[in-house]
Amino acid sequence: MNAIMNHRSIRKYKSTPIDKALLDDILLAGTRASTTGNMQVYSIVVTTDEEIKKQLLPCHFNQGMVVQAPAVLTFCADFNRFNKWCLQRKSNPGYDNFLSFFTAAIDALLAAQNVCIAAEEKGLGICYLGTTTYTADKIIDVLKLPKGVVPVTTVVVGYPDETPELNDRLPLASIIHQQIYQDYSEGDIDQIYFAKENLPLTNKLLVENGKETLAQIFTDNRYTKKDNVAFSKVLLKVLEQQGFMNNEM
Amino acid sequence: MNAIMNHRSIRKYKSTPIDKALLDDILLAGTRASTTGNMQVYSIVVTTDEEIKKQLLPCHFNQGMVVQAPAVLTFCADFNRFNKWCLQRKSNPGYDNFLSFFTAAIDALLAAQNVCIAAEEKGLGICYLGTTTYTADKIIDVLKLPKGVVPVTTVVVGYPDETPELNDRLPLASIIHQQIYQDYSEGDIDQIYFAKENLPLTNKLLVENGKETLAQIFTDNRYTKKDNVAFSKVLLKVLEQQGFMNNEM
Repeated sequence: MNAIMNHRSIRKYKSTPIDKALLDDILLAGTRASTTGNMQVYSIVVTTDEEIKKQLLPCHFNQGMVVQAPAVLTFCADFNRFNKWCLQRKSNPGYDNFLSFFTAAIDALLAAQNVCIAAEEKGLGICYLGTTTYTADKIIDVLKLPKGVVPVTTVVVGYPDETPELNDRLPLASIIHQQIYQDYSEGDIDQIYFAKENLPLTNKLLVENGKETLAQIFTDNRYTKKDNVAFSKVLLKVLEQQGFMNNEM
Repeated sequence: MNAIMNHRSIRKYKSTPIDKALLDDILLAGTRASTTGNMQVYSIVVTTDEEIKKQLLPCHFNQGMVVQAPAVLTFCADFNRFNKWCLQRKSNPGYDNFLSFFTAAIDALLAAQNVCIAAEEKGLGICYLGTTTYTADKIIDVLKLPKGVVPVTTVVVGYPDETPELNDRLPLASIIHQQIYQDYSEGDIDQIYFAKENLPLTNKLLVENGKETLAQIFTDNRYTKKDNVAFSKVLLKVLEQQGFMNNEM
């Protein structure tokens, strides 16, 4: 619970490598997560090699922590292993469709969060890289992911070389809906985002970016429609190419 | 770490309700998970009302724990709240595409795993319901989920009324790939699945189902191509209907 409540994303790492036994403990914690039907349709690619980390760097928009952190963990939806097993056991796998991709993605993501919490409990720091879905095509090339395998998230892990403040969060009540979904009124929205909009950091960002509202920094600078549309095309093409879009009998 | 390593899915619950303060602690742990850009584009619908749980029951293929467990948590990818905020703040949200759905789904799933680990640390039991994506259309109706909101997983939570054995897992080395993906040979597959195929439970299942291999139980009975294709269509239709498939500028 301490590890969960004290989570901070770490973006600066010491060069200290992670002991193999420790890394294995953390990865083993990942495998204890629930998976659909206990099929475990995911894989984790552990990259510590400097040369391969350098190849991953542009896939993650050149964020320095990709080469600085001792280990880069790429969590993949993976039906390749399961399909091979089915074919070797006189059975016909029907897992080349969108539902199967999403099932495998859930497996991978729950395992990822277990790995992160275990790492933090052991004194390591982590950071998720959302860039994974934006450049899934390039990551597939670098990591040589075969058909049936799609990277869904990446986590860098290592010993922290910074101690950032705890990040702000929206009030709990605004994330939770009692019984059924309670849609938000204009007043609700004002109230939910009030604290975030009044952080000193927000004011700093508005000045730096020359924007009138914090929302504009998200829509105009950080997560633009243009980028989202382009990345949507990449991801959908990757799903097709990796064999997850055969949605007819 | 103890909670993570001792996770068992619990399918039988005592009728004891969960104290509100305890439930809030667990949900708060969910909100500490990483989210893309700290946007927190997810929601958790907490259903404890008997009548609404009964309406959810068929969405989860009538698994008794849905009504037996005191709380049903539906984790949703949710851009509705964020979009409303953007629109109230003179900005144009561009989050009606597939990439944005997947981003929000990641947020929801990492939060879900935090909630599960926190619950288990507090002595509660949990079970994930993979049925959520199969019947997302019906869950949307029951929980009145507006545009921009898609249920991605459900967790039932309560005090355990059973103490199941720890489930088997594939060997760690078979899930992990060093540096880049190492594809599996026929021999690898035989080795990876050897222990699972030789469990007493497997033999029992083969006899019960009249099947020759364990893989056939998955492909022919549990997770058939026919079902997967049908559920893929439901899920893709839901994404369109909830406003996440506008993948052009």
